[in-house]
Amino acid sequence: KTTHFSRVSLLLSCKGIYNTRQLNHSLKVGVALVLVSLLYLVDSLYEKVGENAMWAIMTVVVIFEFSAGATLSKGLNRGIGTILGGFMGCLAATLADQIGGAGEAIVIGVSVFIFGVTASYIRLIPAFKKKFDYGAMIFILTFNLVIVSGIRDKKIFDLARDRLLTIGIGFGICILASLLIFPVWSSDNLHSSTVSKFHSIASSIEGCFEEYFNSIDKKDSKTTATLNGVLHSKSSDEILANFARWEPWHGKFGFHHPWDKYLDIGEQLRELAASNHSLKGCLQSPRQPSSKSLKLSIKALCEAVVSLLTTTLREFGESIDKMKVSRSGASLVAKLQKTRLELSAAISASELGELSNDERIAVASSVFLLMEMMDKVEVLAKYIKQLEDLAGFPSH
Amino acid sequence: KTTHFSRVSLLLSCKGIYNTRQLNHSLKVGVALVLVSLLYLVDSLYEKVGENAMWAIMTVVVIFEFSAGATLSKGLNRGIGTILGGFMGCLAATLADQIGGAGEAIVIGVSVFIFGVTASYIRLIPAFKKKFDYGAMIFILTFNLVIVSGIRDKKIFDLARDRLLTIGIGFGICILASLLIFPVWSSDNLHSSTVSKFHSIASSIEGCFEEYFNSIDKKDSKTTATLNGVLHSKSSDEILANFARWEPWHGKFGFHHPWDKYLDIGEQLRELAASNHSLKGCLQSPRQPSSKSLKLSIKALCEAVVSLLTTTLREFGESIDKMKVSRSGASLVAKLQKTRLELSAAISASELGELSNDERIAVASSVFLLMEMMDKVEVLAKYIKQLEDLAGFPSH
Repeated sequence: KTTHFSRVSLLLSCKGIYNTRQLNHSLKVGVALVLVSLLYLVDSLYEKVGENAMWAIMTVVVIFEFSAGATLSKGLNRGIGTILGGFMGCLAATLADQIGGAGEAIVIGVSVFIFGVTASYIRLIPAFKKKFDYGAMIFILTFNLVIVSGIRDKKIFDLARDRLLTIGIGFGICILASLLIFPVWSSDNLHSSTVSKFHSIASSIEGCFEEYFNSIDKKDSKTTATLNGVLHSKSSDEILANFARWEPWHGKFGFHHPWDKYLDIGEQLRELAASNHSLKGCLQSPRQPSSKSLKLSIKALCEAVVSLLTTTLREFGESIDKMKVSRSGASLVAKLQKTRLELSAAISASELGELSNDERIAVASSVFLLMEMMDKVEVLAKYIKQLEDLAGFPSH
Repeated sequence: KTTHFSRVSLLLSCKGIYNTRQLNHSLKVGVALVLVSLLYLVDSLYEKVGENAMWAIMTVVVIFEFSAGATLSKGLNRGIGTILGGFMGCLAATLADQIGGAGEAIVIGVSVFIFGVTASYIRLIPAFKKKFDYGAMIFILTFNLVIVSGIRDKKIFDLARDRLLTIGIGFGICILASLLIFPVWSSDNLHSSTVSKFHSIASSIEGCFEEYFNSIDKKDSKTTATLNGVLHSKSSDEILANFARWEPWHGKFGFHHPWDKYLDIGEQLRELAASNHSLKGCLQSPRQPSSKSLKLSIKALCEAVVSLLTTTLREFGESIDKMKVSRSGASLVAKLQKTRLELSAAISASELGELSNDERIAVASSVFLLMEMMDKVEVLAKYIKQLEDLAGFPSH
């Protein structure tokens, strides 16, 4: 067994896709599956649950997701969907049974159609889909299975109760394995991915100016990839926030940690990343002056601005990471405002006089985009202040 | 029945969430559910399939997705997962059975663990997850159910065969309802969403210049929303392309329609939308000159550029929409190159002399971004040429 396993992990690590967290998750799934299989394997347990043990296995396979929040969300959806679907199914089956005869099959067919259409329609409403899509699917499934079983087996209440019980066992095993053994929290992921965005943008700003002033064509694909990651992080952020809301109090996050504020900050960071992307395009443009003398004349000032911007961003990232009120955030923002005025004044017409039209436009545009980024960092500072207040970060 | 239904649709239409395609999908799900319920309701059918009819219902509920491609993808995943899982499960159960005694349970437990861990790990590899996540889940599920059933019921080959048969019935009903009755194709959606991106960007460019020259604060939230839709379309495009590849030949698309090229064009359109977003921010910036005279002096030229850009974009959109080689695409691109030179020449230092530093930088930046957009449209033209060649669009 061990040999087989270590060979698999060796193979995977050679391909560079080996990852401890993923392996950890897979092992947890394996343990949960073995535990739930005991319902079949141990005679005394099998005598109690019988064939319904199948539903426990199904529950474990289907709801065990990578993060605790996702598992909880799927598990609770499954639980609620099963209870509601089972209840409505029992009601409808009882009604059909009382009508009896050929009418019974017709009542069942019509109920299946009406509930199926209604639930499928509601599933497609975006706001509902986001949180309860899986629950609605389980509702349809349970409703149908219960109502059609009713025509063959009159003890549907027992059937529904037994299935619910075994689903509960499967759910319990998943929650134990997911929340108690090395849990992977979506909230931790959202928190750390937000922090890393600050650092990614700061590195990207530094990178593109370094390339500009040293006239090197670094083709720094790693920085580009991380910046693209920030630009396209909207949907993954929303998924993480959705799961984070399901996660109970744990570690440093309370029950009502302001995850919405993380989404606001993420949005503003994407704005900043978009400006950074434009700035990068602008600095790499063939329209930029090739003469070194002009670049040198603005180098000192640009470097001061870049250093101030990146220090501010990293300071904000640190303060969120440590969940403390940023000590120098406010003074950094004040400095940003002052530096922006200096930057604007420095790029006067006289200095750019020797350049061609294209070159002048390109330099002015770089400066403008840099100023826009400074504006956006100021807006960001406001959101961070709101997060500090809402989450109650300690001062020092 | 009809009354109940028309009341539901009335309620939904009042809330502005009524939508024919969604309703159409829900009705199809209802029909498929009633059809599959007949396996329980009709005595002669029930005698043949028995309790396994449950698996047909489960298949319909679980794999019936909104688009034909998604349904096919889930259905084939389920089919392949069931066959592989069932086969491996039977093999392992036979092996365990031959060992017999206490060893049997141990062999089963160990197999459950090894297969569960391996399949869960493979599921997490991004490239695999994208296409076969659901199949791997069904593999684990079927493998476990078959192997643990083996210890209680020795006729597992019959069991596996019967289940596969009923899953096949469910799959068949879904495919019929999804592909033959008013199908919703992901390929159509990807095609039309790509076309609409061209028009969204064109409208957005027009909108922001109109606002700039008429000094009106339109706060055109609709155009902003559609531009944001283009900016964040990456993940939905990828999902659609993934499903489109599963869809068989239909309508105007052949078997090997170059969906990857649509992703390239989408990426370039997002680049263009990002520049447009920057340009919008730049034109709305408080640093722009407030004097009308300067704005008027560049108005004619800017309007010519904007008109050329939007005409080109709309022409490209039309040509993709009609799947014909764009008649005037090449000449429009040549015009763009010429106009860009004029634009650069027009913004000379003398004209901007009367402005303050901030204002000069803002105007130059707008011009620069406009020129960047023209560059990006040229790149876009190349991708469109590639699409025309790969998909074999007719000339006229």
